[in-house]
Amino acid sequence: METPRPLARRLAAIHPFHVMALLARAREMERGGRDIVHMEIGEPDLGTPEPVVAAGVAALARGDLHYTPALGLPALREAIAGHYERRYRVAVAPTRIVVTPGASGALLLALGLLIDPESRVLLADPGYPCNRHFVTFLGGRPVPLPVGVESRYQPTAAAVAAAWQPGTVAALLCSPANPTGTLVGSAALAAIVEVVEGRGGRVVADEIYHGLVYTDPPPTALACSQGCLVVNSFSKYFHMTGWRLGWLVVPAGYEEAVDRLAQNLFLAAPTPAQHAALACFTDETEALLAEHRDEYHRRRDLLAAALIDLGFRIPVVPDGAFYLYADSSALADDSFELAERLLTEAGVAVTPGLDFGDHQASRHLRFAYTTPVERIEEGIARLRRLFG
Amino acid sequence: METPRPLARRLAAIHPFHVMALLARAREMERGGRDIVHMEIGEPDLGTPEPVVAAGVAALARGDLHYTPALGLPALREAIAGHYERRYRVAVAPTRIVVTPGASGALLLALGLLIDPESRVLLADPGYPCNRHFVTFLGGRPVPLPVGVESRYQPTAAAVAAAWQPGTVAALLCSPANPTGTLVGSAALAAIVEVVEGRGGRVVADEIYHGLVYTDPPPTALACSQGCLVVNSFSKYFHMTGWRLGWLVVPAGYEEAVDRLAQNLFLAAPTPAQHAALACFTDETEALLAEHRDEYHRRRDLLAAALIDLGFRIPVVPDGAFYLYADSSALADDSFELAERLLTEAGVAVTPGLDFGDHQASRHLRFAYTTPVERIEEGIARLRRLFG
Repeated sequence: METPRPLARRLAAIHPFHVMALLARAREMERGGRDIVHMEIGEPDLGTPEPVVAAGVAALARGDLHYTPALGLPALREAIAGHYERRYRVAVAPTRIVVTPGASGALLLALGLLIDPESRVLLADPGYPCNRHFVTFLGGRPVPLPVGVESRYQPTAAAVAAAWQPGTVAALLCSPANPTGTLVGSAALAAIVEVVEGRGGRVVADEIYHGLVYTDPPPTALACSQGCLVVNSFSKYFHMTGWRLGWLVVPAGYEEAVDRLAQNLFLAAPTPAQHAALACFTDETEALLAEHRDEYHRRRDLLAAALIDLGFRIPVVPDGAFYLYADSSALADDSFELAERLLTEAGVAVTPGLDFGDHQASRHLRFAYTTPVERIEEGIARLRRLFG
Repeated sequence: METPRPLARRLAAIHPFHVMALLARAREMERGGRDIVHMEIGEPDLGTPEPVVAAGVAALARGDLHYTPALGLPALREAIAGHYERRYRVAVAPTRIVVTPGASGALLLALGLLIDPESRVLLADPGYPCNRHFVTFLGGRPVPLPVGVESRYQPTAAAVAAAWQPGTVAALLCSPANPTGTLVGSAALAAIVEVVEGRGGRVVADEIYHGLVYTDPPPTALACSQGCLVVNSFSKYFHMTGWRLGWLVVPAGYEEAVDRLAQNLFLAAPTPAQHAALACFTDETEALLAEHRDEYHRRRDLLAAALIDLGFRIPVVPDGAFYLYADSSALADDSFELAERLLTEAGVAVTPGLDFGDHQASRHLRFAYTTPVERIEEGIARLRRLFG
């Protein structure tokens, strides 16, 4: 009998997150009695707003637990359309809105609509690693656009134009971005959309951190072009991580195709989460979420000042999300080794730049401020002792 | 400006379900005041067992709403391993069990691990259409194995061996199958596994209807070979459809790769559903589920006898699931036209064979007994008037 065949080739290009090994080590240290300050986790620590939980409980009590239509509960698709109208003054027909199992589901649908084997997709380096892995999963080729301080860690229209070649089908923009927290400016976004759509491609805009912006609220990419595919999520701003709910906005004309894909890939997004999410767009919930946002804002300012004081460089203050992407080159040659040292010597867990790409990765660490102020202060005190 | 590029090529091979058009027509008729008996829906009508709902409510109340590990709550993976031990007397290490967003998530992971572009996967025709669409989605080629009465609608080892060629990587077996409800017998399963593994391939076994069997309880494919990938679900037997929860068992050695894939594709399965599912494996819940199974059994016997009396042929009485695959050729030349007629003239919605493949599709209808006995009786009375 032969040995069963090896794994599919795509697995070779889908890398583990380095932070997972650090996290496993941190858990081991914790089991050994060590206290760890967690600043590596990309998940809000503040809980799901109480009215949203209550709506979920009510759905369970009613027995609203059957499949919804593949594209989502009609009432939720309408509520999301209302959100675009209210927050952005942009009209989006509910028929173009697909409720998905997390932003992950939205990305899989968006790229599933666009990518053929060998298709090229442009994305920022550094960037969220799952994005390039989705491209790989579908047989496409992620093309990294190295981004740095000079463009506030976002791709420029010139860089997109220069990287475009036959077989390129899309550019994926994340605004605010993970790990850098920066926005694509309105003018830059318009210029990129013009380059991409002028070449017959599509912009896929990841706006999952949109509510968590501490500067002027950004416009949605849909304000720039209704040809964009917009990915969003109930996980970050709405604090519904474990519920697994997101959405995708598709251009007019894609409704039937995305319905077919969603039917086959997911059947539907989780029903309890969809009913709960109906309570996201009320004044009561919005007021709670605004408090959460202010809390993250305070944490950002506190942590950024402290890190700069410690010798990190943060040449671009992030506009949003809950991350600081800090240049550690004045403190260490290699940020992965530094991350290990912060964990083992100071009991502070952070994410090495290596997890976000290749470009200047060994010079950067990502600090997530998804832990309460007193824990951030404890982490800072430990780093001060380590470096002081 | 050029027209944005057309959709990815895979969309051309992912067909809409014909029943969706019928369902839309049925909904329209209902809005017009017409009463429709629904026997087209592959979703249990009986609700999620109360202890499971209660466990979900408790998790929401506790605020257990953050991401779980990508492979699932450790306690749930252990409970599933216990289920294999108790029900099948088969040892499966919890580390080989992946909790997924529905069986859909499990199929995407299983095929993502096995399929390269152009890889061939053998599957029964008729069969559940999403299965072949998952293969297509990943750039593979679904290879239909026509199955009929002579093999109780299941592939044989001889058919698998004859269809195997360079580039074939897996055979997907569904037992009980949708739409036919038949099991692969133990000896046939062993012979198929030997053919597939002997050629360096893998058997993927879909066992989502396993608890809903009205004959002798079937063995799991894992009893035959621990090299099989087994897909299962909390949707059907456990009646948790809208919660979106399933699982995948992978062979030893695949644990790290499937963790990487799950991290990137889903992050994790829905947290409320995972906590709720912990209550699936108690004596109290099992007793309720046994009552549900007995109810479906009664419905099967009632509906099968009535359909045969009406002139349908059911040469193979299904072992399980909640479907009857009925040969309508004595009543009509084309089953799609017949399905339209049953809907418009009798107000009875069923699924045409066309949705499940090409082999003898126009001779068959699928009746789902996912509606209460009195509604099934009403449907039968209407068909009697139509044909009588």
